[in-house]
Amino acid sequence: MSNSKIVKRDVDFSKWYTSIITEADLIDYSLIKGTVVLKPYAWSIWKNIEKNLDKEFAKHNIENCCFPLLIPYEEFLKEKEHIEGFAPELFTVDRIGEEKLESPYVLRPTSEILFCYYFKNNVVSYNDLPIKVNQWCNVFRAEKNTRPFLRTSEFYWQEQHAVFSNKDEAIDFAYKIFDSYKYLLNNILCIPVLTGKKTEYEKFAGADFTLTLEAIMQDGQALQSGTSHYLGQNFAKSYDLKYQNSKNGYDYMEQTSAGVSTRLIGALIMTHSDDDGLILPSKIAPYQLIINTMFYEKNENVKNIVNVIENKLSNFSFKKNINDKSLGIKIQDAQIKGIPLQINIGPRDAENNKVEIFKRSTNEKIIVDIKKINDKFINDLLYEHDSIIYKRAQDNLNSKIQEVNSIEELKKAIQNAKVAFAYFDGNENDEKEIKILTSASTRCIVEQNKKGKCIKTGKLTNKKVYFARAY
Amino acid sequence: MSNSKIVKRDVDFSKWYTSIITEADLIDYSLIKGTVVLKPYAWSIWKNIEKNLDKEFAKHNIENCCFPLLIPYEEFLKEKEHIEGFAPELFTVDRIGEEKLESPYVLRPTSEILFCYYFKNNVVSYNDLPIKVNQWCNVFRAEKNTRPFLRTSEFYWQEQHAVFSNKDEAIDFAYKIFDSYKYLLNNILCIPVLTGKKTEYEKFAGADFTLTLEAIMQDGQALQSGTSHYLGQNFAKSYDLKYQNSKNGYDYMEQTSAGVSTRLIGALIMTHSDDDGLILPSKIAPYQLIINTMFYEKNENVKNIVNVIENKLSNFSFKKNINDKSLGIKIQDAQIKGIPLQINIGPRDAENNKVEIFKRSTNEKIIVDIKKINDKFINDLLYEHDSIIYKRAQDNLNSKIQEVNSIEELKKAIQNAKVAFAYFDGNENDEKEIKILTSASTRCIVEQNKKGKCIKTGKLTNKKVYFARAY
Repeated sequence: MSNSKIVKRDVDFSKWYTSIITEADLIDYSLIKGTVVLKPYAWSIWKNIEKNLDKEFAKHNIENCCFPLLIPYEEFLKEKEHIEGFAPELFTVDRIGEEKLESPYVLRPTSEILFCYYFKNNVVSYNDLPIKVNQWCNVFRAEKNTRPFLRTSEFYWQEQHAVFSNKDEAIDFAYKIFDSYKYLLNNILCIPVLTGKKTEYEKFAGADFTLTLEAIMQDGQALQSGTSHYLGQNFAKSYDLKYQNSKNGYDYMEQTSAGVSTRLIGALIMTHSDDDGLILPSKIAPYQLIINTMFYEKNENVKNIVNVIENKLSNFSFKKNINDKSLGIKIQDAQIKGIPLQINIGPRDAENNKVEIFKRSTNEKIIVDIKKINDKFINDLLYEHDSIIYKRAQDNLNSKIQEVNSIEELKKAIQNAKVAFAYFDGNENDEKEIKILTSASTRCIVEQNKKGKCIKTGKLTNKKVYFARAY
Repeated sequence: MSNSKIVKRDVDFSKWYTSIITEADLIDYSLIKGTVVLKPYAWSIWKNIEKNLDKEFAKHNIENCCFPLLIPYEEFLKEKEHIEGFAPELFTVDRIGEEKLESPYVLRPTSEILFCYYFKNNVVSYNDLPIKVNQWCNVFRAEKNTRPFLRTSEFYWQEQHAVFSNKDEAIDFAYKIFDSYKYLLNNILCIPVLTGKKTEYEKFAGADFTLTLEAIMQDGQALQSGTSHYLGQNFAKSYDLKYQNSKNGYDYMEQTSAGVSTRLIGALIMTHSDDDGLILPSKIAPYQLIINTMFYEKNENVKNIVNVIENKLSNFSFKKNINDKSLGIKIQDAQIKGIPLQINIGPRDAENNKVEIFKRSTNEKIIVDIKKINDKFINDLLYEHDSIIYKRAQDNLNSKIQEVNSIEELKKAIQNAKVAFAYFDGNENDEKEIKILTSASTRCIVEQNKKGKCIKTGKLTNKKVYFARAY
């Protein structure tokens, strides 16, 4: 069984991606280019990501709050590096009704400025530190070339900011959030990642260092899936974020920030899905399980078995599809939507107290006696589902990585849709040159015990770097 | 014990309101007039409201989704009544960076337009109906005179829209949501309400009828706390929302919409709080319970009892305040923040295995043996808390209502900060005249079995109407 509306991955990966999004009912395109409606199925996935990450954040005593969307344009001028990055992308409000504003507002491309004011307003002395806050919100960066979840003019993210009196504590916290993200990616989204620091060239401009999680898609391209920054005192100095220390003097605060966005849904799609549709990890799937029936109204056995199964299952988000459409269509629809498990009930199996279980991870069908079905049985199948899709993603990642020892080898690796792994200790210009030559950028640094020769400068270094084309 | 920073209600109700907001740490004022930061404590209250209402919505198979914030200005021109109401309040985006837009965008003051396009895109035939969707989001209406939660230029709400093939089903659904709101107000927020239809003059312009919930604040003013609209085919005709009916013809969809906003937090404050601070209902309080200690580090008894109590309680959102500040300050802080229950533990009580329980509903303190403390005990106290504050609010509401039989009586009642209840069957002009004379508006209609004389027209009518000044 295959769904003709979904483009095959090896025919056109990019069209495959957009066909999955349409067929799995994730978005509608909206009236303004680069904006989309997140339909209930997509919004539920994002909310499940939020729920899981909020649990991690709660462990670190991070509290959610909510900042205004509008920021005075003049505030952006205070941080020159900040404005340079965003200026051409800023949606700007010059008037209210017909009344022109004296000075314009912008729709937040990010909320650093408001977080800084928050810390300024709420910290007097070291007793008030640390403060750890987060917001889930929409942000705005006008994009010319847009693709759902990967690059849109309005997108959704969380931005987590914290201030500390102690540098080590701040750095430690940046790593803790990094670990929370890794847990989210690996254990909730079943996405293996390459991790490490960004190079000076690729790090967030306002940060002392940036930790990144890089997922590798089925086409060998990297997708930056979360970053955690140690900001040092950079913003603190621009925004005069001082506090009274224990010696009655004043110090600048130490700051961190971190974020993940709806790009993660793009990562989910391009990591797990196949030519039959979406495949979703069980912990963020809107429905972990669907019960599909044939002849529900006409056949007492079918009806009874649905009832029996419903009463047996208590811990899962599940859906029933018991209308009079064909069972084949229902199975295919659930397959396209990537629901981890289907319990399919037709009259013949029902007569024998059996049902068909369809495993989306492998598209395998098994016939099961209904006696076997209980919470533990389903739990085990969901665990198996997540293990299979994680393992497959890990195999894909492993198969893409290629050690290279020269620029020439790097170029070839990238041409072959690989992620190149090389000793590298170059500067910003070296990175730019390599990018022009190969269209690959550095993804992250992994420090080695053993030194090797930088593929660009020839110098000995203990830094190895992943290079890849990236979304 | 009283907190001097909180203004007394009978000295200045309005200043009391803003002092509660500041002292309970609910908001920071932000950089743009009319916008505020919802600090963690306020955001948690709003999120708890969201969680509770989402449960109600789930019972009606309403799904959450997410629409873009920006709407092309020209779309507003299609619905003349729609644009007239909002035109002077619209934040308008004319450019991106330095690039002028060919046609401007507005920040959504409401999302009717996008919901209509959603229904247009997702409905072909009667088989696709009903569709019931909701979004939780921020909306924008520039306000000159702003007050936190009551009137701000950016605020938060949910907007719930649905389309049906059947008129009766649509009307029935509008009442179902109305009932969900009533449940939220009465049972979750502990706020009694006056309910009924709005008059033609006060209803939502695009609706055939509007159902409203009106809470009565401690100062006798009404606060509209939720509305549910039957929109008929009004928007369907403007936006050409047709579907193929079962006879292969085409019909316009029947539509409903409904919403509540962060005004509810304003209603909470002005319904329950007192001169000592906020009082929060247990089901939306960020912390239902706080454990305050004296000499936690120095006194083993205190430490042990905290430990014992923590292990006994499993079902509550609670907080520990065990730092070395004075117990008096901790008690007062928890009182200002309206935490329903405090368990206060000092060395002397601890020695006797006793703790003090502070009930915020009455500011009463009781000494309790720790043996008595368990989930049921706390549950009962929270139930008592909610009952007391609901009863007090109901008594306030009852005490404010005054039957009136003439315009003169109505005027006096309003002057005395009452809600006037009168037979009324006037038209829009009659309402306007009464408003000019008394500064009261009609809040809702309650149909009576017995007819009486309209206080304005003198005609016999079975409609009685509540008049009040309103936030």
